[in-house]
Amino acid sequence: MDQPVRHDSMRARNLALVLGEVSRGGPLTRAALAEATGLTKTTVSKLVGDLLDARMVTEAAAVRDGERGRPGVAVSLSGDHLGALGLEINVDYLSVCVMDLTRSVRLRRTQAVDNRYSISTDVARKLRKLALEAVDEAGLTIGGAVLAVPGPVDPARGLLHGAPNLGWRDIRPAELLDLPVPVAVDNEANLAALGELWFGSGAPDFLYVSGEIGIGAGLVFGGALFRGTRGFAGELGHVVVDPGGPPCRCGGQGCLERYAGQDALLQAAGLLPFGTDAEPVGGRGPAGIATLVERLRAGDGRALDACEQAGRALGVALISAVNLLDPGTIVLGGVFAPLFPWLSGPAARSLSRIGHAAPRLEVSAVGPDAASLGAAAQVIEQMIANPATHLSRA
Amino acid sequence: MDQPVRHDSMRARNLALVLGEVSRGGPLTRAALAEATGLTKTTVSKLVGDLLDARMVTEAAAVRDGERGRPGVAVSLSGDHLGALGLEINVDYLSVCVMDLTRSVRLRRTQAVDNRYSISTDVARKLRKLALEAVDEAGLTIGGAVLAVPGPVDPARGLLHGAPNLGWRDIRPAELLDLPVPVAVDNEANLAALGELWFGSGAPDFLYVSGEIGIGAGLVFGGALFRGTRGFAGELGHVVVDPGGPPCRCGGQGCLERYAGQDALLQAAGLLPFGTDAEPVGGRGPAGIATLVERLRAGDGRALDACEQAGRALGVALISAVNLLDPGTIVLGGVFAPLFPWLSGPAARSLSRIGHAAPRLEVSAVGPDAASLGAAAQVIEQMIANPATHLSRA
Repeated sequence: MDQPVRHDSMRARNLALVLGEVSRGGPLTRAALAEATGLTKTTVSKLVGDLLDARMVTEAAAVRDGERGRPGVAVSLSGDHLGALGLEINVDYLSVCVMDLTRSVRLRRTQAVDNRYSISTDVARKLRKLALEAVDEAGLTIGGAVLAVPGPVDPARGLLHGAPNLGWRDIRPAELLDLPVPVAVDNEANLAALGELWFGSGAPDFLYVSGEIGIGAGLVFGGALFRGTRGFAGELGHVVVDPGGPPCRCGGQGCLERYAGQDALLQAAGLLPFGTDAEPVGGRGPAGIATLVERLRAGDGRALDACEQAGRALGVALISAVNLLDPGTIVLGGVFAPLFPWLSGPAARSLSRIGHAAPRLEVSAVGPDAASLGAAAQVIEQMIANPATHLSRA
Repeated sequence: MDQPVRHDSMRARNLALVLGEVSRGGPLTRAALAEATGLTKTTVSKLVGDLLDARMVTEAAAVRDGERGRPGVAVSLSGDHLGALGLEINVDYLSVCVMDLTRSVRLRRTQAVDNRYSISTDVARKLRKLALEAVDEAGLTIGGAVLAVPGPVDPARGLLHGAPNLGWRDIRPAELLDLPVPVAVDNEANLAALGELWFGSGAPDFLYVSGEIGIGAGLVFGGALFRGTRGFAGELGHVVVDPGGPPCRCGGQGCLERYAGQDALLQAAGLLPFGTDAEPVGGRGPAGIATLVERLRAGDGRALDACEQAGRALGVALISAVNLLDPGTIVLGGVFAPLFPWLSGPAARSLSRIGHAAPRLEVSAVGPDAASLGAAAQVIEQMIANPATHLSRA
């Protein structure tokens, strides 16, 4: 009984070796793959055959194998068959992204919607519809999904401990979604940080700050996420800016979110009446921030003051974050990206008070759907690290 | 030429394998060592012979080698010959610790001294004298030293970037010490956290808070220090408690240190007149804190208020630290250990405002010289990991 099991696990390991090389360095000939993996050419040919059958790789035009030898057929990842689903539930939008195995985005959908104090099953139903439509339109076979949510998550149990801005507590969102593929759950700032790592500047050490209704952060250190003991690290939005400040939905007082979160910003700029049921002037989701940017460009005093205050508070919270985490650089994403020209100055001035040299503030190059992008890419990473489980889906 | 080099590096690796097993699991017979390392008994005997010659191990009374076989002679670490030096320069004391290879502390010396705005060469001269006396008295051959300093350090370059409370900037303290053994430099809170890891509760995930004139922290995660990108992580003392608060020596405003550092505490309790040249009522270093503890025990109102305020500020800074780092537990050390009964209540109350369950506050079991203890133990770790470099010293 032992023999076939051992054979299977060795085959799985070797498939991962070959696909990993193709993913990192492809297109590669079978000969180059044999050299890179240390496997025989016969074994490589058999494995490449399996990956071709599974449509995970494709054969490109003949290439010359270095200077010597005859031309070989190059193997590269195939974007035509398998794909991954990145999903996000945030406070004022839902987002879906379909990515193929080559990490090309095939389709992105964002829907503005007010999820404040929402019923989780209703939100899940809306996202399910959006996701199924996107999968249908993209025409790929989806190997798995990761869902980004705005609160601390225990990824092993798929448990969202709490999302104060949604009014949710101890929820398993993947079960509510009920999609026909496995769905993992993670924190949106963590996934947005992975989006920045894989699709942004490519720096291995940075603190990604995700500005939304809530504010989260993902610390990438040595090319990997630092998650803390329970997976709750990076909750920048609840770093205390003023212990005597206004109460926060988390139960605390004077949290950064109350000064620099999207609602706080729009309220200070006169674009969002106070009160949770109020309708913002410029519209929900990206529309509200677009209106704020228009006013900032027009030199509107209230809008400029709002960004000055928010930037200063962000800088104060970042002093604490830099003192505790010592990140390589700080990348501002989410709604902080379009507001960067107005926020970064006051934030940098606050931050310059720090004793030693403060890290540079940078604007995220990834865009507002960094989290669903990072989510989909995480599925692709796992598919490439473990291709054997996807062979049967071909 | 290649042969002897390869042989030497293999011998060095095997010596480390054998000594590592003896350190983790000793006393062990040669047969048990051969089994644990996968080396032949002949090779093990030769290596044990070398380690005996170097007096890094010793042979204990005959033990029975499991159930079967004849009795073997057990090998264990020897505490009789090699040792390590742990050193600390802090703002109001110097500390020295000599530890033998079995991690037994052979000698500890702490000297109260005012190092505020001091001349680094003067302080180095005092510590050098203390260290040489301790080494002389302990009677061990010292393999190396690590020096703890109260500020951010680049350990690779041995560079102390700045210690605002000493008034030092960009100094290489090891060069000033000029000891006859190699001296590495590291941050005192980091080394105290290692002291707690190796000599305290043994938990693998915790944030060690080092309360001194300054306040530092060392994050231990998975049994290892998290240092950040430049080695500056854990500067809890400069987390902002109130952005409109009093100026701090770091250049910032309202830093935790200004509310809960030793000077701030003693001043609030009426035990230290304001102004840097003032002489404290209870005496410098541990004496001042001992006086404060006496007054707290006697129910002195001003002392109790001082701890209430400091504890609350510590709790506010810890809200930020927990949100960003998500530590397993929080261990209060340094002067916060004797003050734990009075500080931990208000700190825990501030901390309980956090959205999810706050980690437990614990008191350090290691004592005020945790940093020099951790420093010496780090040298021992390195000696055991690399015994070949110490063979010639025998």
